[in-house]
Amino acid sequence: MHFNTIALIGRYQDSGLDAPLRDLANSIQAAGGKVMIESDTANNTGVTEFMVADYATIGAQADLAIIMGGDGTMLGAARQLALYNLPMVGINHGRLGFITDIPLHIAQEAVSRILNGQYEAEDRVLLEGRVIRDGRVMYSGLALNDVVLSRAGRGGMIEVRVELDDVFMYSQRADGLIIATPTGSTAYSLAVNGPIVHPSIRALLLVPVAPQTLSHRPIVLPDTGTIGLTITALGRVESGASVHFDMQTWSEIQPGDYIEVRRAHHSVRFIHPTGYSYFSTLRRKLYWNHMPQPCSESE
Amino acid sequence: MHFNTIALIGRYQDSGLDAPLRDLANSIQAAGGKVMIESDTANNTGVTEFMVADYATIGAQADLAIIMGGDGTMLGAARQLALYNLPMVGINHGRLGFITDIPLHIAQEAVSRILNGQYEAEDRVLLEGRVIRDGRVMYSGLALNDVVLSRAGRGGMIEVRVELDDVFMYSQRADGLIIATPTGSTAYSLAVNGPIVHPSIRALLLVPVAPQTLSHRPIVLPDTGTIGLTITALGRVESGASVHFDMQTWSEIQPGDYIEVRRAHHSVRFIHPTGYSYFSTLRRKLYWNHMPQPCSESE
Amino acid sequence: MHFNTIALIGRYQDSGLDAPLRDLANSIQAAGGKVMIESDTANNTGVTEFMVADYATIGAQADLAIIMGGDGTMLGAARQLALYNLPMVGINHGRLGFITDIPLHIAQEAVSRILNGQYEAEDRVLLEGRVIRDGRVMYSGLALNDVVLSRAGRGGMIEVRVELDDVFMYSQRADGLIIATPTGSTAYSLAVNGPIVHPSIRALLLVPVAPQTLSHRPIVLPDTGTIGLTITALGRVESGASVHFDMQTWSEIQPGDYIEVRRAHHSVRFIHPTGYSYFSTLRRKLYWNHMPQPCSESE
Amino acid sequence: MHFNTIALIGRYQDSGLDAPLRDLANSIQAAGGKVMIESDTANNTGVTEFMVADYATIGAQADLAIIMGGDGTMLGAARQLALYNLPMVGINHGRLGFITDIPLHIAQEAVSRILNGQYEAEDRVLLEGRVIRDGRVMYSGLALNDVVLSRAGRGGMIEVRVELDDVFMYSQRADGLIIATPTGSTAYSLAVNGPIVHPSIRALLLVPVAPQTLSHRPIVLPDTGTIGLTITALGRVESGASVHFDMQTWSEIQPGDYIEVRRAHHSVRFIHPTGYSYFSTLRRKLYWNHMPQPCSESE
Repeated sequence: MHFNTIALIGRYQDSGLDAPLRDLANSIQAAGGKVMIESDTANNTGVTEFMVADYATIGAQADLAIIMGGDGTMLGAARQLALYNLPMVGINHGRLGFITDIPLHIAQEAVSRILNGQYEAEDRVLLEGRVIRDGRVMYSGLALNDVVLSRAGRGGMIEVRVELDDVFMYSQRADGLIIATPTGSTAYSLAVNGPIVHPSIRALLLVPVAPQTLSHRPIVLPDTGTIGLTITALGRVESGASVHFDMQTWSEIQPGDYIEVRRAHHSVRFIHPTGYSYFSTLRRKLYWNHMPQPCSESE
Repeated sequence: MHFNTIALIGRYQDSGLDAPLRDLANSIQAAGGKVMIESDTANNTGVTEFMVADYATIGAQADLAIIMGGDGTMLGAARQLALYNLPMVGINHGRLGFITDIPLHIAQEAVSRILNGQYEAEDRVLLEGRVIRDGRVMYSGLALNDVVLSRAGRGGMIEVRVELDDVFMYSQRADGLIIATPTGSTAYSLAVNGPIVHPSIRALLLVPVAPQTLSHRPIVLPDTGTIGLTITALGRVESGASVHFDMQTWSEIQPGDYIEVRRAHHSVRFIHPTGYSYFSTLRRKLYWNHMPQPCSESE
Repeated sequence: MHFNTIALIGRYQDSGLDAPLRDLANSIQAAGGKVMIESDTANNTGVTEFMVADYATIGAQADLAIIMGGDGTMLGAARQLALYNLPMVGINHGRLGFITDIPLHIAQEAVSRILNGQYEAEDRVLLEGRVIRDGRVMYSGLALNDVVLSRAGRGGMIEVRVELDDVFMYSQRADGLIIATPTGSTAYSLAVNGPIVHPSIRALLLVPVAPQTLSHRPIVLPDTGTIGLTITALGRVESGASVHFDMQTWSEIQPGDYIEVRRAHHSVRFIHPTGYSYFSTLRRKLYWNHMPQPCSESE
Repeated sequence: MHFNTIALIGRYQDSGLDAPLRDLANSIQAAGGKVMIESDTANNTGVTEFMVADYATIGAQADLAIIMGGDGTMLGAARQLALYNLPMVGINHGRLGFITDIPLHIAQEAVSRILNGQYEAEDRVLLEGRVIRDGRVMYSGLALNDVVLSRAGRGGMIEVRVELDDVFMYSQRADGLIIATPTGSTAYSLAVNGPIVHPSIRALLLVPVAPQTLSHRPIVLPDTGTIGLTITALGRVESGASVHFDMQTWSEIQPGDYIEVRRAHHSVRFIHPTGYSYFSTLRRKLYWNHMPQPCSESE
């Protein structure tokens, strides 16, 4: 087998995860693999008959992590495992995701093929960012999708000064600002008219959320640069703002804070069964095949 | 019966239209209605065993027109019948349309209900427009969806001066400009980010196509006004432009031409089976129910 | 004079408002008008040598209110004076606004012309809305621009069910949802790609903010209808949501809450000097005259 | 001097180009440089007192080309000089351009600094494309901005099948499709909501024009791939389509044609005075500094 020790990680909230998790674990063991169940997953599903391990142990000892859940579960596991270079497989327990791209009903077959070496590896960039106030780091985090600066409520806009490698780009008043990886280009950014960025592009994506100046557009920047955001004003006295690293939120942003974001040293390795197509996932998720027809004239 | 003489009009190009057309005609006769088949439809489908009539006869004698085809078939019939105030029913022979909103497999039942008085009537505005050069009308037309000014090819932009009731609105360089009815708001306009305008709104929709100035936006105007477009320049010597009234094209636009568009005196009456929902059609056509999920973070 | 008693209302925060306010008051008195200064305005500017009056007195006794400030000042005054049918004039002390459309340097001349009867009146619709929980009204408000439902932070999307006159329109997951008047179509809505709706259109505008389903579009609805929003879910346990009536915020939205919005009985009357042009304001505010040229090919 | 022989190329159509052209040529000679005037430029401006040379001679003998005109002039010269690796400087004779980024009134000073070695060089990618029918190349071309597939008029949509390195991406019905370089991301693509792509990114940009399926979005692809477009249908019998390489048009597109686009072997070298800022040009061209304020509520 190409991978000997396999860690299984699941979405905690899901009822009904225990059966497919147990089935997959059994089939891996039957094929000669060693199975670890992540400890919170084991506690929540009751699948405790296999070795139970925390993230640190998984990172140190496993050769492959299989995530069952949604894209959010994958994001959380990616952050936990970022330091360990542990390859990850995403199985969607529910609607298909952009990064959990193996549907549950073919999970056993897909995992079997991967364990037999029929797979493709793909590296996805992570972002690392930190909030600096008066020279002190107030918060830092990692993100696979995006770092999002966001105002709280409708209490006035955020004013932010944006720099690339300390060179002034522009100032902007907006609801918020997204700094996304190519992976994150199909997440929140897509809902505010960001472009789709192919994962092999070495780029960061800077997308304004509801910018006041109507000629602002998403910008694709080289991922070798450091993006700096200075909060020059928050709309009103009572307003707040927050910064989000994927699903992790820090809500204490104040005027004057400086947020620094760059590509992280570590990246995440996704494993797909051979024949994986990035565009096939897009077509399915975005209904491109269905061709709804707003333009009746051509009929 | 609420309607005595029923005209049937079909999409000429469709093979396979003869059987459902014949079935529907027979069921109308069986219910005591008199059937007319529009002459081109009869010729092309070979359904000639009923009374065959041209549009003028249909307009003069029929009480209801049933259109089988796509939205384009409906647009064509609406223009032909605009002067006669003949109510129209749209049956979609293919993918559902925005205005041919009865699917073929329930056509007989839907028509039967309509003939029995279980229907709702809805009036849709038409546009009338004309191209004026040196005081002479060069072209005029009617449109149920939209009047579209459009450059030919990529040979430079159209420059157009836009007025409402002879008051200057703005000048614009763009690929083109759409003046749409609420009905047309779900046609071409939707593909260039126009809003959806409910059919009961008394409004015209003015939507730029690829405007150079990035702060231009679609504008909703009162339908009591006259919109005037003056072509102030065409991009390059060899470039041309055209104006389209639904699917009718006039390609001889020259710099200096003036295009005048207003609500037509006549409107079109659509008949729906009782219980029709405008929003149900939108939901189905635009896949609103499917909720593709670009934003994986919330999972 | 066409208006005898004139109330002056100013933006409290502005330093430097006292001089132009005093100048305007003096010139109105010199022309034979009676001047009232709104009490907070008087306190904050120190312009206390004229009659000082609260909003109730102004509403009962004044014939015209002149607002000096920005669009926000105008919004606040409109809400305070909505019940009194008091005509309003907007003078912009700073950058020109969409609704404070008289620049400060021509304020005296413009007001003089208005007092002499050289003016146009224009009625703008207000929205009234209320939040209902378990049959009880938790909050209610008026808005001249918009009622905005908005999630707090990035903690997951709002799920909302939208109805028009109790008929289901669609369900949506989004950052928020804007219900705007035509006046509000050039406010927040414009930053999230809403269309511009001419003030004479009898319509409400429904605009999603960052909708997950990419085929959602702004919708223009008749203003005779009642829009109902049911909060079916908030993204995560810790998430909150708020509803905003122009600048008034209520932050206690919970899943299950029902928000009802309709056109208010009262409207607001704006007074412009004769010759006012809605589109002139648009052109100036949106830089339509400048024609930045993204498309270099046509040069 | 860092460049000895300097070619000057101007926009032919411009009256008034002769004086600044002559001034610049004289100042280069005075500084010890050798001047060539491109032959069409010399003929059209009457500036014939310097050496006159055609593009082939310029390509073979000049060390630097200075273009005076607009972005279109620069595009034309870039195509003519693509094979020669001749560095180019763009001076805008009129409104500032995205790539003719030196305003005329500082041209002499900027050129003087460049000749003294105070410059930055920046390579911009070119596209090469060809149209293939039945195995034969029907047309081929180079583009610095974009290759655009475009229908003629409103006669129905183009249906196109898009592949990346022979792998199916999606099929699309649309008015057209843009394949742009980062340079072209601020040209036509920007008018149809394409993102801004920094010139240092190794990417191609694929942007649909008025796509029927509302969930299509611009896509950023690696520039190591070959994009293949197969025309699967043109809307109606009478419809045509064309392909544009910057401003060069080929109008004979037929169903079944295959268009292949990739990064060209040659690139173009732009020379800027030291201190050039890509973002400064964006800010100026897109009015980012002016902050029009659609959102009056925050005032």
